[in-house]
Amino acid sequence: MSRDQAEIRGLVQRWHAATKAGDIEAVLALMTDDVVFLTPGRHPMSRSEFAALSAGPPGALRPQFDVRQVVREVEVSGSLAFMRSGLVVVVTPPGAAAPIERAGQTLTIFRKIDGHWLLARDANLLIPRPASSVAAR
Amino acid sequence: MSRDQAEIRGLVQRWHAATKAGDIEAVLALMTDDVVFLTPGRHPMSRSEFAALSAGPPGALRPQFDVRQVVREVEVSGSLAFMRSGLVVVVTPPGAAAPIERAGQTLTIFRKIDGHWLLARDANLLIPRPASSVAAR
Repeated sequence: MSRDQAEIRGLVQRWHAATKAGDIEAVLALMTDDVVFLTPGRHPMSRSEFAALSAGPPGALRPQFDVRQVVREVEVSGSLAFMRSGLVVVVTPPGAAAPIERAGQTLTIFRKIDGHWLLARDANLLIPRPASSVAAR
Repeated sequence: MSRDQAEIRGLVQRWHAATKAGDIEAVLALMTDDVVFLTPGRHPMSRSEFAALSAGPPGALRPQFDVRQVVREVEVSGSLAFMRSGLVVVVTPPGAAAPIERAGQTLTIFRKIDGHWLLARDANLLIPRPASSVAAR
């Protein structure tokens, strides 16, 4: 594994840790200013929309996150890289009777800026379970 | 627009023309051997799976394709590039009463091999209409 590949995998780990801890500022520090998040059936989401969605309604308790991501590949050329992964996200809203589970594939673009890799584009193809077999491949 | 960006946009145009003409070999010539196609709720699809799906059942008439793709951005670094687009695909199976319309976003990776750009990874986030407003942005 190259140093760039290792740094990108490290970024993904930090992303999950910060998400689990509810540290939105730490997550925002891992993405470019012009980041775009793509999900099926929604408009592309910007950094500020991501931040608002992550913060949730004022005063609301934060949902619990359990994330399992298997990185399939990381390929780097100069200041661009892409990563493909299988991902399972289990979200338990406060007071919810049952968690919401989504699974599927991701394709993510990273850009190296001032020597640091940041997440720049993310296509999240997750759909509600049952889809664990999709993520496992 | 750089020469690389123009070549990638040209590849996309040739892809659509070959698809419309039912020229599967021409489409296959525009992708890498290790290409992976990602769609929501499906396993990642390889080159051979793409070819089999495109060919359809033996002796079957081929569906008609109408594709409208708006390229949002193409970014290049060395031998890698990514493209983001809004896409509407209208498929009319032979003898069908009504076309099937899907719309949404795409995120695509291209790799330069021996001086030629080829499609290497494709995340297709299209869902059945009504979603034209998603593709338009």
